[in-house]
This record gives sequence, C-alpha cells and structure tokens, in this order.
Amino acid sequence: MTREIHIGKIAVLMNVALLGYGTVGRGVDEIVRERLGDIAVTRILELPDRLSDERMTANYDEILEDASVEAVVECMGGIEPAHSFIAAALKAKKHVITSNKAVIAAHFSEFVHLATENDVGLFMEASVAGGIPWLASLAKIQRIDNVSSFSGILNGTTNYIVYSMLKDGSDMADALSKAQEFGYAERDPSADIDGIDVANKTIITASIAFKTSCTSDLPVTGIRNLKARDLAMFKQYSSTVKLIGRGVARDGRYACAVEPMAVPLSSLEANVPLNFNLVSVDSWSAGELKFYGQGAGSLPTGNAIVQDLIDCKEGRRPNYDFTSELAYDPSLLEGDYVLRSNYRPDAAREFEPGAWLVSSLSPQAARELLDRALEDDPESLIISFSTKG
Amino acid sequence: MTREIHIGKIAVLMNVALLGYGTVGRGVDEIVRERLGDIAVTRILELPDRLSDERMTANYDEILEDASVEAVVECMGGIEPAHSFIAAALKAKKHVITSNKAVIAAHFSEFVHLATENDVGLFMEASVAGGIPWLASLAKIQRIDNVSSFSGILNGTTNYIVYSMLKDGSDMADALSKAQEFGYAERDPSADIDGIDVANKTIITASIAFKTSCTSDLPVTGIRNLKARDLAMFKQYSSTVKLIGRGVARDGRYACAVEPMAVPLSSLEANVPLNFNLVSVDSWSAGELKFYGQGAGSLPTGNAIVQDLIDCKEGRRPNYDFTSELAYDPSLLEGDYVLRSNYRPDAAREFEPGAWLVSSLSPQAARELLDRALEDDPESLIISFSTKG
Repeated sequence: MTREIHIGKIAVLMNVALLGYGTVGRGVDEIVRERLGDIAVTRILELPDRLSDERMTANYDEILEDASVEAVVECMGGIEPAHSFIAAALKAKKHVITSNKAVIAAHFSEFVHLATENDVGLFMEASVAGGIPWLASLAKIQRIDNVSSFSGILNGTTNYIVYSMLKDGSDMADALSKAQEFGYAERDPSADIDGIDVANKTIITASIAFKTSCTSDLPVTGIRNLKARDLAMFKQYSSTVKLIGRGVARDGRYACAVEPMAVPLSSLEANVPLNFNLVSVDSWSAGELKFYGQGAGSLPTGNAIVQDLIDCKEGRRPNYDFTSELAYDPSLLEGDYVLRSNYRPDAAREFEPGAWLVSSLSPQAARELLDRALEDDPESLIISFSTKG
Repeated sequence: MTREIHIGKIAVLMNVALLGYGTVGRGVDEIVRERLGDIAVTRILELPDRLSDERMTANYDEILEDASVEAVVECMGGIEPAHSFIAAALKAKKHVITSNKAVIAAHFSEFVHLATENDVGLFMEASVAGGIPWLASLAKIQRIDNVSSFSGILNGTTNYIVYSMLKDGSDMADALSKAQEFGYAERDPSADIDGIDVANKTIITASIAFKTSCTSDLPVTGIRNLKARDLAMFKQYSSTVKLIGRGVARDGRYACAVEPMAVPLSSLEANVPLNFNLVSVDSWSAGELKFYGQGAGSLPTGNAIVQDLIDCKEGRRPNYDFTSELAYDPSLLEGDYVLRSNYRPDAAREFEPGAWLVSSLSPQAARELLDRALEDDPESLIISFSTKG
C-alpha cells in the first residue's frame, strides 16, 4: 500500500499495524480509511488461512521489523499471545494502543514499565467502556481533583440480559439466547455473566483513578444465578438489579468490588437500555459526573482506538502514576446484602420468603457468604442492597 | 501578592484576573488556590464598595494594562459590560475564559474574530452544562466525526422545578419557591423558565457542533405555564415533560429549538434528578453519548473554568470553525405537538379533555400556534410529543 507523505504541508503520515481483524480491527480500519488523512493502516496481523488483503501477514516479526510502522493496535483479546505481542512492540519502540482489558488488567505494571523504558506511548481508552471517553475523562479530572469514587455498568452483555428480563419478564436463559442472537453475547458467556469482564475493567479503572497498581484479588460476583423472581422481589422495593463494578478511596485506603447491586428504579443506572454502559465518577470540584454510551461494537470501540491514535500522533502520552500507595481495605465498601438462598446464614433476618438480609458486610465477606450458600443451594444469589461506600 | 516563579523547574506561573467575584469567581479562586501550583489569581475586578481583598480593583484598565496578567476569566454574566470587557481583553492580547452564555450567544463571531486577530485563546467550557466536559467532548468527537444531532437538559433550575412537581405533585409556583429557597433559581426566574438560558446554550452548542454561526432566531418555548395536571396527563402515556434544547444537521441543513418535550418515563432524561443536567450527542462512529453532571454551582462551574485555564496554560487553543454554511431548515425537527389550551386549533384532534394533538409541525410553527392560543387562553402550553428529528 502506498500513500503520499506531505512533510511540512499537511502532517506526516503515521503508519499503523493492526493485530487482529475481527469486529474491532475492522472498525478501526473503516474509521481510519473514511475519516483520517494522516494515519494509515499499512499492516494487519491475521491467521495464516485468513490473509485476504495485501496488508495482511501471519508473521508478527515482519511487523516488528517494519520501521515504517510507528504504532501497533492490539485488538485480538485474551492474554496470550497478546501479552507477548504488546511487550515485543513496546521493546521495538512502537506505540501500543489496545482494546484488550484482560491483558491490561493482568500486566498493567509491566506494560507501563516497558513503555516508559522505551519512551513510547501505551493507550487503552477502548479497553474500558468502549466508545465512552472514560479513561480520558478520569485523566482530565485528575488534572485538578483526586477521584473519590467510581462505579458503573461496564458490561453491555449483562445489561442487555437484565434489560430483557425486566422488559419481558423472561428468565436468564431466554435473555441470554436473545443476547447471543443479536450478537451482544459470546457463545461462551462466562466472562460476562460471571463478572470477569467487569472485574478487568474495574481493575484498570481503579489503577488509573486511584493511582495504584490494583491487583486482581478484588471480590467478584456475577449474575449467573439471577432469576426473573429476583427482579420481581426487588421491584417491590422500587429497585432493580444491575451488575456494577465500583471503587472508593479515602483516608489513604481504597477498595473495589464487582457484584450485582440493587439500584432505585428512578436512578439513571436502572434505566440504561439494551447493551449500553453508564459510568460514574465523583470528585471534589467536578462533583458527580456520569458518562453513557456504547461499551462495545465495531465503530464505538474503533472510535476510542482512533481517538488514541490521534492523541498518539499529536505527541500526547498517557501518564500512569501508581505511586499513591493506598492500602486495600474492603471495609470501605461495607453495606447490607440480600442473600436469596435455601441456606439461611447466621445473624440474618428474613427479607422475603427464601431471601435473607445480612447487615454490614464487606463485598469480600459477602462473596464468602455466597460461596458457603452455594454449597447448600447452587442457585444462590447475593445482591448488594445499600448505597454506602 | 507575590508568588515564586520557577522557570525551567516546574512550570512558569500564569497570572489570571477574575472579572466578578460571585459564586463562580469564588469557586475558581478556591480551586486554583487549593489545587494548582502554576496558575495564580492575581487580580479581581469588583464593585467599588466590595473591595475586600488586596487583589481587587474596580478599575478594569488596571487589569488591561497589567502585562503580568495573561488571561482574564469573565464570570460576571449579562451582556454589558461583559461584552466590552471581553472584547477589550482580547484586543489587549489576553486569553479569555468565560462562563457567560448570554454574551457568547450574542457575540460569538465577533469574539472568535478578535481572538484570531490577536492570536489569543477564547475558552467557554463553563458556559454550557457547567461542570460537564461538554464542549470539549464535542470538539473531541469532531476530530473524527460530524455531529449529527444533540439534545439535552441544559438548565438545572427548570429540571429542579419539574423534578419537584413530579415528586411532590406540587404546582409550578410551589416548586419555584422551593428552587429559590435552595438557591437553584434566581429571584427573577424568567431567563430559566422562559427558556432563554437554554436558548443561549443551544446557540453555543449548535454553533460548535454544526460549525456554523447559529443566530438567535431559533424557536424558544419555556415551561412557565406547566401545571401539575400536564404532568399527570403525560404520565398516562408513560411520559413526563422536560425542557430540552436540541439541534440536528443533515443533508446540508440544520435546525435547532428549545421547547418542553414529552420524554418516556424510562428514558435517562426523565430520571435526571434535582438540578442536574444531561446532554446527548450522536455521531457516526462514536454513536450516542450522554454526559450527566452539575450544570451550575460554584465548584463545578469553577472546575470547568479551571480546566480551560490549564488547557490555556498548556498552549491549547479552541478552534471555532463556522464555515460549514448549513442552511437553516426548521422542518428537520418536524413532529407532533400537544397543545393544552382552551383555544382549539384547526386540523387538531382531541388528545385529552382540553388538550389537542397537532401533527407534523416544525418547532417554529408550534411556537406560532402557541402564540395564537395564548391570545385566547394565557395559560396555554405546547409540548413536543414525538421522537422525530
């Protein structure tokens, strides 16, 4: 592929390689082709049996050794080989832009170290909340404020499932098949419905928001066992249930958690439709800010990557500062929980038939209580039912 | 006031003058003092009988002639003398940051011309949607996309009034006194409840979003005549009423309007509480994005101004491009309206007792119909009741 380079006229062209050409890679390619004159996708890494375009290669070394490629966009997903590919690109002094939350959550510090050492940029706007300018907004807030807390609907698949269950009164299995039919859910939906995807996004958000290398031992509970009757139960309390990732920092400590939470029917969170995301952040001077948009999809995620590419080309470099040394203290998120289970916990009072209200648990203790309940009743579910933290 | 300047060490100090020391000015002063080391408020313009601080002067020429003042923050409000002061500051080659929507809406082109001519920056993030990074988000979207439409709850006072009326079933007068009591409404609330404040913000947003110098002849209808029974009527249609400013652009044309609109009870708009704002923007690749936060208040508005100050200090200059030459075409926003009035329009069918449904009106035609109805019934109200446009 040849494209003219106008030095000192318009702007010099930046050549980019895509690693992966699935939904996100195609979106990036389309947006760059349609809208940008000074960035070009010149190489694409693909599987050997899918080399349908002259830019494509199955040999990553060709890309690493191509000195004209200044930036690598990793949109393959998964931990390996994404981890090795990103590390190799940084070592080859190429900027890295990624939409891969799993690999960042697992190797954030290592990548930051490599990017700094090699004086290149590491960009990841697309990894959390897709098309919403979320990480950039956190960075902007941090020019003035410390982030005191964040929370959000960070997974479109599970929002779609809960939205369908609420709208149609359908059960998890039906809502999930519908989500799969519309392409909102993977064939194996475990990463979504067990909260793993949200946990990765929460780790990345907390690391940036609280300036600490947040590790993966946060309590994570998904919505696999959510039933239509659970939603009906909470409706009596003018609430519904959403899968929420959140974090809070104060007094030199921080905590984060991923779990189903009861939210008031009149909240913005309860009214997020389809597969949209909604993320909130609170800070001293800006106050409460919320951002809503598509958390996934070819063009929205592609848009976030292309925004990073433009920043990269303009010479901006995200600055990851993990030096706050906050202590992890799960008690910061202590609150009340409803356990819906045939197992009756100690010190619980009946909330509704077959459901128990347990007061003042940390998300960690709630997760442990759920694990105990699951031994007796594999359909058990625990839901945060307070607004503390 | 003396503050050390560390050249080449941290960053050089930027000295700033505040014009006005009310709610917003105090917020800026507090945030700068508490959080920034490299920006200082060294002069404040105040009324002669309020000079309570050694930085204060009642003589604007002193500020204009002070070569150490690089940027002027105008937070007085109103058209004059704000207009003359801003023009004079730009001519004196000082950057201008303003939260004043009225003066920008009235003199946008003139200010842009002066800023360009004098090679200084003109910043106005705080003028629309207060603490929400709204204009910056539009500019970011425009790096890739054209904005196809925007809409929003842009006035906290009227949102608070409708929120109270809905929550308590109270009427306009009670909700307004409550808003005044909490400091959410001015003693003379006309600019808020007649939609003038939203019109100014819509003009600024449309000018930036559609790259055209949007003038002030857009149709504007407020909520002065909104009654508790109007909200009760729309509740039967699972809707409520919000005062919305919006615009749309397509096929070389654009339109904008400010009017009460029926929105579904399940929409985010319907669920915006208290005096918060919610603004939406739609574009090809980013899709639908919404931003929620405080549209007013000392710290949130101050935060938006300080963000502009930081951008200014970092050498960024907003670029206002009014060259799109879109034609104004109100028919782009054509839709159905409910007129609640003792006056029965031609070609209307009864919607509910005392209310008429009129199909396919432009907001301009709806405004004219309302004016006709007000002649017969001074309590008449017209409400957009469709989602077209």
